[in-house]
Amino acid sequence: MPSLCSEISKLSDEDLGGFINSFDTVLTDCDGVLWFGMNPVPGAPEVINLFRDLGKKVYYVTNNSTKHRRDFLKKCTDLKFGGTQEEVFGTAYLAAWYLKNQGFSGKVYMLGEAGMAQELADVGIESIGLGPDPPPQVPFTASVAVDIVKELDPDVNCVLVAFDFNISYPKIIKALNYLEKPGVIFLASNTDERFPMHPYALPGTGSIVASVTVPAERDPIILGKPNTFFFDAVKQRSPNVLPERTLMIGDRANTDILLGKNCGLKTLQVGGGVHKLSDIRRWEKSECPKDQKLVADYYIDSLGDLLPIMQRLRHLLK
Amino acid sequence: MPSLCSEISKLSDEDLGGFINSFDTVLTDCDGVLWFGMNPVPGAPEVINLFRDLGKKVYYVTNNSTKHRRDFLKKCTDLKFGGTQEEVFGTAYLAAWYLKNQGFSGKVYMLGEAGMAQELADVGIESIGLGPDPPPQVPFTASVAVDIVKELDPDVNCVLVAFDFNISYPKIIKALNYLEKPGVIFLASNTDERFPMHPYALPGTGSIVASVTVPAERDPIILGKPNTFFFDAVKQRSPNVLPERTLMIGDRANTDILLGKNCGLKTLQVGGGVHKLSDIRRWEKSECPKDQKLVADYYIDSLGDLLPIMQRLRHLLK
Repeated sequence: MPSLCSEISKLSDEDLGGFINSFDTVLTDCDGVLWFGMNPVPGAPEVINLFRDLGKKVYYVTNNSTKHRRDFLKKCTDLKFGGTQEEVFGTAYLAAWYLKNQGFSGKVYMLGEAGMAQELADVGIESIGLGPDPPPQVPFTASVAVDIVKELDPDVNCVLVAFDFNISYPKIIKALNYLEKPGVIFLASNTDERFPMHPYALPGTGSIVASVTVPAERDPIILGKPNTFFFDAVKQRSPNVLPERTLMIGDRANTDILLGKNCGLKTLQVGGGVHKLSDIRRWEKSECPKDQKLVADYYIDSLGDLLPIMQRLRHLLK
Repeated sequence: MPSLCSEISKLSDEDLGGFINSFDTVLTDCDGVLWFGMNPVPGAPEVINLFRDLGKKVYYVTNNSTKHRRDFLKKCTDLKFGGTQEEVFGTAYLAAWYLKNQGFSGKVYMLGEAGMAQELADVGIESIGLGPDPPPQVPFTASVAVDIVKELDPDVNCVLVAFDFNISYPKIIKALNYLEKPGVIFLASNTDERFPMHPYALPGTGSIVASVTVPAERDPIILGKPNTFFFDAVKQRSPNVLPERTLMIGDRANTDILLGKNCGLKTLQVGGGVHKLSDIRRWEKSECPKDQKLVADYYIDSLGDLLPIMQRLRHLLK
């Protein structure tokens, strides 16, 4: 039985009311759904706040690994989406949550930014690797690599790869040689190919992660969407959350929508970001189960389009 | 009918003579076969020179993309393997050969080292990108990326990714945004995961290439082994070379031996480098055709082990 996606704009008022009443928890992606860069999607802040007025719980779930929840919340607040730090889930926090849950003790070698180092420090985990490495000795010879490897920290027992603007060959050498040690945990924040930044293309964390996984010849545990850790963390915070009464909203099918599918949530795909309605229609027709799994339950051009609908149907909503 | 590999050490004198008389052209990998770093494999220089004494033509074929053939030949000469520049085929040369054969006119954006820029210049192709980029502006913001993209050279119509010790996020941004232009050629030297450098692990060109292909979401033309371009270039130089009378020697099955198989050559796997006899025995038993294709025709622990054999059987060799 093929998956089919319903367009919100084509639903009857009764079905729209039924849809909005069908969830009491919302997980929403941010960039491409709520905002583009520093520009909020028109109507989106009002939709998120209307969700809250209706008693729905809203969680921000973002594969962005560079920010501490505190900084992320500041953006949510500045752009009028509101919320609290407990409602923010980024992959920097998720790395700290995962390691703490595992009872991790040791040191992390991190390819990442300051927000991630701070999230780790918040749960008492020391990380090294932040910032640029010393300028590489040129020309590069094998002895340069040997010198780098000799200075590895014997206490490191986890390599965590996330977005790192200072990615460099010496950093890849370090990550790789830490990973040669038996038992070293290998985590990656996410594998998004690009950041959404039209009309330019901006390499995503997947680029940094691939530069380590290829020579490491082993696969990391990937914390971010589409894996289920985000929802696991939400459930740990709110044990009563019901998957079947939770809506996942996203613009990227292979991370956002797939996270929803992997956790048994309802899913709403917005256009305007990474994937389009035409992608969904193509996946619906595909005979490949992997494509079928990318088909969201619902589609809307922009999250802001829900605002007039919710205002008009306010009397039907509980 | 499963592929089976014959161990040179277990062959009769008659079969050994037959084997050595069965080829008159040799393609040999270098690092891991002829030398490790700056240390020649004992007996290997004498074997290569004995091949030449027997009238066999020897070509060096290496996925190493950092060296001009001139520098490569110097190493061959210093380590007593001999040869001429025309007998050296590296991926830096192969990139120049490929583009010239395609009638390429334009400019190359290169992630690579000086030897590659020089090979391109030798055939009249201008490249940009050599050396470290200016230190990145910190903290990184989207506007930094926009500034980088605005300064892209409109004449670039090929992106060539090879080993680049100065890999950096700004370089990946540039490569990616050049690749967004319709019709831009995308070449990669090779995808070797690591350089052979025991006991340390040194990230190979595959690490650099993956950092670009993941965000580019398109696949490059890969010049090096196991693709057939090396043998195409040898055939263009020596049109009478016969695949069935050519021996490919290598230590890495998924590049060296597979190149041989892809071109219909005889293949000799040496131990001591990347792959072992135990790997071959495992692939022989595999039901996967991809594994079967990695099984070399012959195996020897070290190329130098051919020396006493060839000396003893000199009277049988033509």
